[in-house]
Amino acid sequence: MTQPRLVEVRQKVLSKNDAAAQVLRERFHHAGVCVISLVSSPGSGKTAFLERILTVLHKEVRVAALVGDLATENDAVRLARSNAPVKQITTGTICHLDAAMVAGALEDWKLSDLDFLFIENVGNLVCPSSYDLGERARAVLLSVTEGEDKPLKYPSIFHTADAAIITKMDLAKAVEFDAALAHRNIETARPGIPVFEVSVKTEAGLSNVLAWMKSFREVS
Amino acid sequence: MTQPRLVEVRQKVLSKNDAAAQVLRERFHHAGVCVISLVSSPGSGKTAFLERILTVLHKEVRVAALVGDLATENDAVRLARSNAPVKQITTGTICHLDAAMVAGALEDWKLSDLDFLFIENVGNLVCPSSYDLGERARAVLLSVTEGEDKPLKYPSIFHTADAAIITKMDLAKAVEFDAALAHRNIETARPGIPVFEVSVKTEAGLSNVLAWMKSFREVS
Repeated sequence: MTQPRLVEVRQKVLSKNDAAAQVLRERFHHAGVCVISLVSSPGSGKTAFLERILTVLHKEVRVAALVGDLATENDAVRLARSNAPVKQITTGTICHLDAAMVAGALEDWKLSDLDFLFIENVGNLVCPSSYDLGERARAVLLSVTEGEDKPLKYPSIFHTADAAIITKMDLAKAVEFDAALAHRNIETARPGIPVFEVSVKTEAGLSNVLAWMKSFREVS
Repeated sequence: MTQPRLVEVRQKVLSKNDAAAQVLRERFHHAGVCVISLVSSPGSGKTAFLERILTVLHKEVRVAALVGDLATENDAVRLARSNAPVKQITTGTICHLDAAMVAGALEDWKLSDLDFLFIENVGNLVCPSSYDLGERARAVLLSVTEGEDKPLKYPSIFHTADAAIITKMDLAKAVEFDAALAHRNIETARPGIPVFEVSVKTEAGLSNVLAWMKSFREVS
């Protein structure tokens, strides 16, 4: 059941990723760009949320986005409707983005021309948790339709996040979402983390998330 | 960006898993137990669906279930309400079940006492696709709240499945689910695959899935 060789190689890969992420982090800091990554399971509404955030921020500051998927350019096409610069990273069979993929995608972008860069990871509540992308902050999204127990069942992705965003609040009643229980479970997985409830459809809660994002820009 | 050493070790792990899965498949066949695995993203309703299936089948035939999660015994507790024997496999940080984990969990079960064994994988639309568990059939679940594009964005998990089950149909109208588009995308990822639409809440469509499961039992 244990696979020591795989574990050993994976640890080497993670160490190499940590080093590449550190280089990225220094580049981002030097260029004055605040980088925020989004992680979640597939279908939790990352792209709809990010499209809305980009559309609002694009009017005030200079924003761009990278978006990861195994296949298709669908998300980049959707995000480009915000008029912000967007680039798709297709990972093939790889279940997460890594720092080298991010560095590669950024090659022809001038970072100092940006205030915010968003990175939308592959939809996966497990693997992305281990890969530092040099981001300033990582937000984990959880939709009300997924069930309140996800923070307990996927603790590492919540534990490595800087904020939790509960999405699709407009469906909360239809799915009998227990918000208090979800908040308790998030608090168990990551004590003290800020938690936002949003609906992209009704726009409820989005201004609070934007304020949180801007607070990182001010201190970075 | 490429990690040849990791790819090489991963291929060795997969070959080893394939061999272990083949041993399991022969054991299952010899014992006369039909094994069906369920894969999906987190929160698509695998456990609710399986609890319902176990409850119905338990009245007619001998059924049991294994359920995989990174952490918690929550799903085993839920599934045990069906009165079928259930065992939890907690994988720690591992993003999928493998054949050795399944073999280990079955050590103290007499397979010839079972007609059906269900294996609920870790919620993940990427990694479980590569790991054969010796199952007779694999069903991929997709909930209406996740979006119709998932089969195109996660092609390998759909491509390795024997049926697709669209869950939470009771929410279809609320989320403006485009069933025709979802069917087209599933057909693109896996031409000819049977597709079922179900709601555990209303029980709509469950009898069709049960008939499909029983058809495997008859020919195995």
